[in-house]
Amino acid sequence: MSKRPLIVIGGSSERSQETMGAFQEFPQVEACRLYSKFSAQPSSIEAIPTIIEKAVRCSIYGRPGACYVDIPADFVNLQVNVNSVKYVECCMPPPVSMAETSAVQLAASVIRNAKQPLLIIGKGAAYAHAEEGIRKLVEQCKLPFLPTPMGKGVIPDNHPNCVRAARSRALQFADVIVLFGARLNWILHFGLPPRYRPDVKFIQIDICAEELGNNVRPSLTLLGDINAVTKQLLEQFDKTPWQYPPESQWWKTLREKMKSNEAASKELASKKSPLMNYYTVFFCVQEQLPRDCIVVSEGANTMDIGRTVLENYLPRHRLDAGTFGTMGVGLGFAIAAAVVVKARHLGQRVICVEGDSAFGFSGMEVETICRYNLPIVLLVVNNNGIYQGLDADTWNEMLNAGDATVVAPPSCFLPNLHYEQIMTAFGGKGYFVQTPEELQESLKQSLADTTKPSLINIMIETQAMRKAQDFQWLTRSNM
Amino acid sequence: MSKRPLIVIGGSSERSQETMGAFQEFPQVEACRLYSKFSAQPSSIEAIPTIIEKAVRCSIYGRPGACYVDIPADFVNLQVNVNSVKYVECCMPPPVSMAETSAVQLAASVIRNAKQPLLIIGKGAAYAHAEEGIRKLVEQCKLPFLPTPMGKGVIPDNHPNCVRAARSRALQFADVIVLFGARLNWILHFGLPPRYRPDVKFIQIDICAEELGNNVRPSLTLLGDINAVTKQLLEQFDKTPWQYPPESQWWKTLREKMKSNEAASKELASKKSPLMNYYTVFFCVQEQLPRDCIVVSEGANTMDIGRTVLENYLPRHRLDAGTFGTMGVGLGFAIAAAVVVKARHLGQRVICVEGDSAFGFSGMEVETICRYNLPIVLLVVNNNGIYQGLDADTWNEMLNAGDATVVAPPSCFLPNLHYEQIMTAFGGKGYFVQTPEELQESLKQSLADTTKPSLINIMIETQAMRKAQDFQWLTRSNM
Amino acid sequence: MSKRPLIVIGGSSERSQETMGAFQEFPQVEACRLYSKFSAQPSSIEAIPTIIEKAVRCSIYGRPGACYVDIPADFVNLQVNVNSVKYVECCMPPPVSMAETSAVQLAASVIRNAKQPLLIIGKGAAYAHAEEGIRKLVEQCKLPFLPTPMGKGVIPDNHPNCVRAARSRALQFADVIVLFGARLNWILHFGLPPRYRPDVKFIQIDICAEELGNNVRPSLTLLGDINAVTKQLLEQFDKTPWQYPPESQWWKTLREKMKSNEAASKELASKKSPLMNYYTVFFCVQEQLPRDCIVVSEGANTMDIGRTVLENYLPRHRLDAGTFGTMGVGLGFAIAAAVVVKARHLGQRVICVEGDSAFGFSGMEVETICRYNLPIVLLVVNNNGIYQGLDADTWNEMLNAGDATVVAPPSCFLPNLHYEQIMTAFGGKGYFVQTPEELQESLKQSLADTTKPSLINIMIETQAMRKAQDFQWLTRSNM
Amino acid sequence: MSKRPLIVIGGSSERSQETMGAFQEFPQVEACRLYSKFSAQPSSIEAIPTIIEKAVRCSIYGRPGACYVDIPADFVNLQVNVNSVKYVECCMPPPVSMAETSAVQLAASVIRNAKQPLLIIGKGAAYAHAEEGIRKLVEQCKLPFLPTPMGKGVIPDNHPNCVRAARSRALQFADVIVLFGARLNWILHFGLPPRYRPDVKFIQIDICAEELGNNVRPSLTLLGDINAVTKQLLEQFDKTPWQYPPESQWWKTLREKMKSNEAASKELASKKSPLMNYYTVFFCVQEQLPRDCIVVSEGANTMDIGRTVLENYLPRHRLDAGTFGTMGVGLGFAIAAAVVVKARHLGQRVICVEGDSAFGFSGMEVETICRYNLPIVLLVVNNNGIYQGLDADTWNEMLNAGDATVVAPPSCFLPNLHYEQIMTAFGGKGYFVQTPEELQESLKQSLADTTKPSLINIMIETQAMRKAQDFQWLTRSNM
Repeated sequence: MSKRPLIVIGGSSERSQETMGAFQEFPQVEACRLYSKFSAQPSSIEAIPTIIEKAVRCSIYGRPGACYVDIPADFVNLQVNVNSVKYVECCMPPPVSMAETSAVQLAASVIRNAKQPLLIIGKGAAYAHAEEGIRKLVEQCKLPFLPTPMGKGVIPDNHPNCVRAARSRALQFADVIVLFGARLNWILHFGLPPRYRPDVKFIQIDICAEELGNNVRPSLTLLGDINAVTKQLLEQFDKTPWQYPPESQWWKTLREKMKSNEAASKELASKKSPLMNYYTVFFCVQEQLPRDCIVVSEGANTMDIGRTVLENYLPRHRLDAGTFGTMGVGLGFAIAAAVVVKARHLGQRVICVEGDSAFGFSGMEVETICRYNLPIVLLVVNNNGIYQGLDADTWNEMLNAGDATVVAPPSCFLPNLHYEQIMTAFGGKGYFVQTPEELQESLKQSLADTTKPSLINIMIETQAMRKAQDFQWLTRSNM
Repeated sequence: MSKRPLIVIGGSSERSQETMGAFQEFPQVEACRLYSKFSAQPSSIEAIPTIIEKAVRCSIYGRPGACYVDIPADFVNLQVNVNSVKYVECCMPPPVSMAETSAVQLAASVIRNAKQPLLIIGKGAAYAHAEEGIRKLVEQCKLPFLPTPMGKGVIPDNHPNCVRAARSRALQFADVIVLFGARLNWILHFGLPPRYRPDVKFIQIDICAEELGNNVRPSLTLLGDINAVTKQLLEQFDKTPWQYPPESQWWKTLREKMKSNEAASKELASKKSPLMNYYTVFFCVQEQLPRDCIVVSEGANTMDIGRTVLENYLPRHRLDAGTFGTMGVGLGFAIAAAVVVKARHLGQRVICVEGDSAFGFSGMEVETICRYNLPIVLLVVNNNGIYQGLDADTWNEMLNAGDATVVAPPSCFLPNLHYEQIMTAFGGKGYFVQTPEELQESLKQSLADTTKPSLINIMIETQAMRKAQDFQWLTRSNM
Repeated sequence: MSKRPLIVIGGSSERSQETMGAFQEFPQVEACRLYSKFSAQPSSIEAIPTIIEKAVRCSIYGRPGACYVDIPADFVNLQVNVNSVKYVECCMPPPVSMAETSAVQLAASVIRNAKQPLLIIGKGAAYAHAEEGIRKLVEQCKLPFLPTPMGKGVIPDNHPNCVRAARSRALQFADVIVLFGARLNWILHFGLPPRYRPDVKFIQIDICAEELGNNVRPSLTLLGDINAVTKQLLEQFDKTPWQYPPESQWWKTLREKMKSNEAASKELASKKSPLMNYYTVFFCVQEQLPRDCIVVSEGANTMDIGRTVLENYLPRHRLDAGTFGTMGVGLGFAIAAAVVVKARHLGQRVICVEGDSAFGFSGMEVETICRYNLPIVLLVVNNNGIYQGLDADTWNEMLNAGDATVVAPPSCFLPNLHYEQIMTAFGGKGYFVQTPEELQESLKQSLADTTKPSLINIMIETQAMRKAQDFQWLTRSNM
Repeated sequence: MSKRPLIVIGGSSERSQETMGAFQEFPQVEACRLYSKFSAQPSSIEAIPTIIEKAVRCSIYGRPGACYVDIPADFVNLQVNVNSVKYVECCMPPPVSMAETSAVQLAASVIRNAKQPLLIIGKGAAYAHAEEGIRKLVEQCKLPFLPTPMGKGVIPDNHPNCVRAARSRALQFADVIVLFGARLNWILHFGLPPRYRPDVKFIQIDICAEELGNNVRPSLTLLGDINAVTKQLLEQFDKTPWQYPPESQWWKTLREKMKSNEAASKELASKKSPLMNYYTVFFCVQEQLPRDCIVVSEGANTMDIGRTVLENYLPRHRLDAGTFGTMGVGLGFAIAAAVVVKARHLGQRVICVEGDSAFGFSGMEVETICRYNLPIVLLVVNNNGIYQGLDADTWNEMLNAGDATVVAPPSCFLPNLHYEQIMTAFGGKGYFVQTPEELQESLKQSLADTTKPSLINIMIETQAMRKAQDFQWLTRSNM
C-alpha cells in the first residue's frame, strides 16, 4: 500500500491561451497545493519523466500522500525529439528508518511495567507492512490490541487478543498505550480525558516526526518505519522474554466487557421482524464473507456498525472513508481494488458495503463496474435516509396531509428506493431483500456468480439504531 | 438572475479542535478563495448577519459570482444572547451604471457606418435583464444578431434577425461587432483571425471594466449595466433614426448561408435508419418543446448540436455547462430551476438534455428529482460513449475476441445502457426509445404527465457526428 | 494617478530547473495572488507583450491596483524570432461609466434636503481626476467638505469650506454624508456610531460596485467614474441651482469648532522649549512648504498630526502610508515621485516627512536618492522612539542603573540619533536641528539648494503628544 | 540549532472587524502558508499554549523550518479566566531515528570500495550536531571532505582532509560521494554532469525521506538523524577497521589542485595596489579572525569568495544567505547571533561580512546593533556596486559628459560611499579603509574594543573579480 503511489494527473488548458479565457482555464497546480504533497506542471514535455518520478517518489517516501501533476492541453499533440527527453529510472523503494536504540529499550521497559497495557494498530502499520512483527509482539507478550478503522486486519479481527468489542473500556482504563501508526485525532478522541485516563502513558510509533506529540505529550516516541521499529521492539522481548499475565484483572475486565457487548450485539442481530436492523444484516453478511475478500465501506451507521461486525483477516483489505470521513469514495475505492484483483488474477472478491445516502454520492460508478465486469458485490444498507428515514406508510400519510417533501426531514429519502435497479440497468444482477433469508440467499448467489457484479439492496428498519454508547461525547468518532 | 445571489454555505470543523485533527478539518475559507468573489468565516455568531449580507451583496453587485460563507461546527449548538446579534437589512438592489454619453454617441456612429454589422448577445445581457432594449434595438435598426450559449433567449432564437444558423460566416465577415455582455474567450474564439476579420471593429458593452480589451483591442468600450447602456444606445437611434438596409449584400449572404445550413441540418434530421442521429433527435424534440420551458443541457456533441437546434424564446431559460464547460452540473441546474418553478407555481417544465457521459456525473440526483417530484423531463441522448461509442455487435465481437474493455477505447460505455431504469428505480417514468416515433410518443406522454418526472433514454447512432465544420481549429468552441 | 499602472515584474528561477531546488525557486505567481489584481507568468517570450498589456490594463481599469508579471530567469538569455512575437498596442484609457440618472436626481434631492450635510473626498476622487467638478460643487452649493488622507488636495486644504479642523465634530453630527471615492473602512470608523449619527444618510459614489454598502446600508449609491458622476450631480444643481445656507447653525458649529481646534494647535505650536513638539515643527514647516510640492509621509504621530497641519493645494500631491498603514513605504514613494518630477522637468520639490521609526524601515534608500540626485527634502521628526522615546538623561540613568536596553521599552531608540549622517554618508546635506530657528534656517537652505538632496533631523520632545481627542475609541484611525 | 525553534508571531486585525476594512486587515495565516511548516491562528486565548506548543514542535521535529502563529489584535486586551487556559508542557526534544542496519552495512562497503571517495558535509549535519561523529569518520578513514556553505565548521576548515580549495576537481572526479545532510540543489549543481561523473555513486544521508533521490538516483539512501546515522557508519568501521590510502592518486590529485588554487589565491591576495581586491581583504581578515567567532555573510562575490578564504573552526558558527540566496538577512542574522552570545555571556564576537549592495538592504539595523550594544564587527566590502562598480574618476567623467546615473549601469552605486558613517550616526565606531594596513589596524581596534560595535568600510577595486573558474555554467552556485 505504502508502496503504491497516488498520483492525480490533471490537464490544464493550452499554455499559449493562458489568461485569455481558455477552455477550462484555471491555476490547477496552485489549486491542488493544499490537497497534495507535491503539485507541479512539467516545464516541457522533456521534463515529464523527471516530474513523474518526483511525484511518485514523493507519494511513497516518508508519510505517503497524494501528488498532482498537471499536463497542459497543448502537450497532447506536441512533437518532441525523443532524444531530448530526459528519461529517468523509477525511484528505489522507500528508505527505511529505525528508532533510536535507547528509546526502544525504554519503551520495552514501560510496556513491561504497564498494569493495563493496550496496543492500538493504525493505518500506518498497514502501510508499513508491519503485520508479521506486530502479530508476533501481540502473541509473544500476550497484549490486548485495538485496530483503527483502516488498521483492521493487520492482525485478524477474530484474534483472541483483539479487544474491539470492548473498545471504549479499553481506551478509558489503559495505563500504557502503544500507538502503531495511529494518530491521536478525532477518531481516537484526541487522546484526551474523559475518553482516556489523565495519566495514561502513550508510546507513539510513527514514520512522521511532526505527528509525534500532537494533542498529548507522549511518554515516549519511536520515530521510524513502523515495521522496522516493531522488529526493534521484538528484539528487546527476544533478549529478555516477557509476557503480560493473561489472567490479570485487566484482561478479565476486558473479556467480560467484550462478552457483554457481543451478547448485546447478538441480541440485536436476532431481532428480525418486521424488518432487519444493522446487526441482523451484518451478522448475516459476516457469516458468508470470504476470508480474503476486500471490504470497502462508507456511510454513517452503516460504516460505523459494519466495522464492528464485519471482520478483516488480512492487512490492507479494508478501505474506509477513514479519517477525513469523506462520503462518495466507496465505489471508487472498490473499483480500484477490483482492478488490481482482476489484473493480477488474485481471485478475490470486493465487498462494498454502502449506506443508502453514501451510495447516492457516486452510484453511477456502477456503470464502470459493469463495463469492466469487476468482481464486486455491492451491499446497500437501506434505511430510507441519513441516520434515519421514514417508512412508506408514514411518508404516504404525510404526502396525503400535504407535501411529504416539505414535512419530511431533509435527511429522508423516498421510502423503499430500488437501488438494485441501478445495477440491472447496466447489466449486473440486482436483489431487493427484506428478510435475513433473502439476504443470505442473494449474497450466496452473488458470491457464487463470478461472471457478473451484483448489488443487494437491503431494506432495514428506518429507525434502526446503534447500541447505546458509553459516551455521548463525540459519538461520531467511534471506530 | 443577476438579482439572485449565489452563496455556498460550508461547515468547517469545531474551532476549538482546529489543528488537532478534527473531523474533516481543513482550511475551507482559504480553499474557496480561488473559486469565489468573497470567502469568509464569521468571527462569531453575532457576526453572521453581517457576513451573509456582505456575501449576498458581493454576489450580485458588479459582475455576479459565487461567494462562500463558512459556519464552523461549534456554531450549530452555540447559544448567544439575541440582543448581541447585529442584525442588518438586506442590501439594496445592485447599483446601475451607464456608459459615458460621448462613447455612446461614437458607438452609434460606428454602427451606422458598418457595412457588415453583427450584434453578439451574451450571458451578461441576460443577467442584466436587457431583453426589452436589445430586442428593440435589433428590430428598430434591423441588425443581425447571434446569441452565445447562455445568451440564447434574450431575443427568441426564431427571430428573423437571428443568424445562428450562419454563425461561422457571421463571425468571419462582420466588420463591426457589438458585444452585449459577451466575453471574447474560447467560446468566441478569442476574437482573433482566422475566425474574424483582422480589421473587425469590436464595440464591447460590459459591466466589468477589466473585461474590456481582453485579447483584442476594441474600437470602443461602453462600461456599464448592459440594460442601461442598451437604452442609451436606443436613445441615439431614437434621436436620429436609422436602420441597416435589409436588402444589403450582407443580409443576403447571411440568409443564404442560413438557408443552406438549415437544409443540411434538416437533411441530417431526415436520416432515421437504422438509428437516429443528433439532428433527428433534436428536430423531434424541438417540435414538442413548450415555448416557456427551461432548457438545461450538458454534454459534448449533445450540448453543442442541441444548442443549435433547440430554440429558446425567453431570456434566462437556458442553463448550460457554459464557459467553463464543467460536466456534472446539469441535474443540479435542472433541480434548482424546477424548485423555483414549483415554489412559485410557475407551471413551466424543465427539459434537461444530457449526453450519456454527462449524465453519468450526477445521475444519482434523479432521486432528488423524484423525492421532490420536480417537473423535469430528462432526455439522455445515448451514443454509447463520449464523442462516439461502439454498437453492441462490435462490442460483442471484441468481447469474444478477448476483452472488449481492454480493446474498446476508454471513452466507450457498455452499449445500450438502460439509463431510464435509474428513473424507474426511484419511482419516475422511464422510456427506452430507438425511433423518432417512440421518441415523439414518449416525449408527448412525459410532457402531458405533470404528476411525475420522467427520463427518456434515446438511442442514437454510435458514430453520430455533427455537420462538417468550416474550421477544424477549436471545434469545441462552437456555440 | 489612475492612469499610471502599477506593475511589479519579478523573476522566478529557470523553468527547466523547477522542482529541482533551483536558485531562489518559489511559486511566485501563486505567492502574489493574494496581493494583486492579476498575477501571471507569460507562457513564452512571444507572449510577453500580451501579458504586459493585460497587466497594465488590469491595473488601471476599474478600481486601480497592483499587478504582478513573472519573467523566469531563462527568458533573459533566450533568443526568439522577432516575427513570432505577438506585439500588441497599449490599451485605451480606462473606460468611463456614469451613475443612473434617476439615482443622481435622487441624490441631488437628498443633498438639498440635508440639514447638516458633509462631503467626504477620498483617494478615489483623486484617482478619478475629479478635482474640477468637486470643487465646483463645493463652491456652488457652499457645502462643507473633509478630505481623507490621500484625498487631500483634491480641493486645497486651505479652502474656506474645508472643515478638517473640525473633523470629529463634522462626522459625528452630519445628517447627510456624500462619499466621493472614500471607503467606510477603519479610517472612517466604519461609518458606525458613536462616530456617526445612527440615522446619518450616506450617499456613496464609487467606481467599485462591491464597495457600495460595506458596513453601513447607504441611502443611495452612485456607481461610476467619480469624475463623471460628480459632473452628473453638477448638472442637477445647474438645472435647479441651490446652495446650502452659509449662515446655518451647522456652518456656525463647524466654524466654531474649527476655530477652537486651530487655536489649540497654535497654542501647542507656540510651545518651543526646551524642545519642540509636533505642532511647533509642522507649523514651521508649513510656512515654507512650496505650494506645488509633493508631500510624502509615514509614521504614527508624525503622519497623523502632520496631516492635520501640512496643507495640500493640489490633487495627487500627497503620498501617505494610507489605508493599509504599512511603514517603510515613504522613501520608495518619494523616490518614485521625484523620478517623475525630474524626468518631466516639473521643477517641484518632494518633501518626505518621516517619523524616526518609519525612517528606520528603509533609510538606506537615501543612497538611491543621492545617486540619482533626486529633489527630495527628507524631514525626520525624531522623538527617540515609537509613540514616545526617552531623553538622553533618562536613558543614561537607566544605563548606569543597569542596562537601559533591558529596562527601556522596546519602542525606544537610542536618544538623539544622527539620522542626518545617513544623508551625509552618501553625499547629501544633513542638518541636526533642535530649535524652530534651526529648523527654519535648515529648511530654507534645503529648499533653496536644488543641487543636492537633504535630510533634516528634527529633535522634538520625547513625550510629544497629540491634542486630546474626543474619542479614545480607534484613535489610530484619525485622518 | 535544530533544537532552536523558529516561530514568527504576527498580529492580524481585530476579529470582529474582519471583512470590514480593519486596520491592516489581511488573511495572514493563509498568506504564510507557502512559507512555513505550520501556520495557524489560535481559536481563542485559551488555545494559545496549545498552538505555540504545536508550532515549536513542528519547527524542530523532522526537517526544521519556520512556523507562523497569528495573534489577532483583540487578543491583546482580552481578559480570560486563567483557569480556562489550557496550559501545555513544552514538547520533548526531537525524536531521533536511525538508518536500516543493512543499508548502513552496504554503505560502508561502497565506501570501502571507492576509488575516489568524497564526503560532502551539509547544513543538515550541523543542525543534527553530528560534528563529533563525522570528524571521527573523516580522521579514522582518512577521507577527503567538502563542506557546503552552512556546513562549514562541522569539521574545521583548516583540517588537512578538507579539500575546499579543490572543490570543482573533487566534485568532478569523485566516484563515490557521501552526502551528510546536503541537498543536491543548485548549490551542488543538482548532482549532474558535467560537474560530476555520470557514474558517480551518491550515498545520501538525510532526515527527510522526500529529499532522497532528488535530481539523481542515489546508489544508497540512509534515512535518519544524521548524527545517529553517522554513528552507525562509525560502528561499521569500528568493527572492520579500514582507511582510505593517504597516498592514493586521488589524494595526490586533490592535494596538487589545492596547492595550485591556494597559490593562485595568495597571488591575488598579494596584489595590493592601487586598491585591494577580495583576496587581499579576506586574507587580512582571516589572519585576525578569532577562532570562536560567528561569521555572518551575505553578498555576491563578497559571500562567495569570502566563504573560500574565511575559515570556520566550529559548527553552527556560520550564517550565510544560504540556499535561497536572499539578500538583506545578514544584519538580522548577526543581531540574532549576538543576542544569544550576549545573553549567555559567551564572550564571542560576531563578524558580519557584507557586500556593499547586500548592506543596503538592511543597513538601518545598525541602530539596533548600537541600541543593544551588540558585540558585532561589520565589514562592508565596498566595490561601488553589484558585481562591479565604477571608480570616482570614471563616474565624474560620465557626470560631466551628461548624467552618470543615466549612463552608469543600474548596478553601480555612487563611488566611495561612507557606510561607516551609518555606524557613527548611531554611536558606534566607523572606519574607512583603503589599504591592507588600514584594514589590519582598524580590525585590530574593532576586535579589541568590546565596548562598542564597529563598522569597517573596506574600499576595493571596483572591478575586483574572482579567480577564473573551471565552469562558466552556473558560476553563481559555487559554494
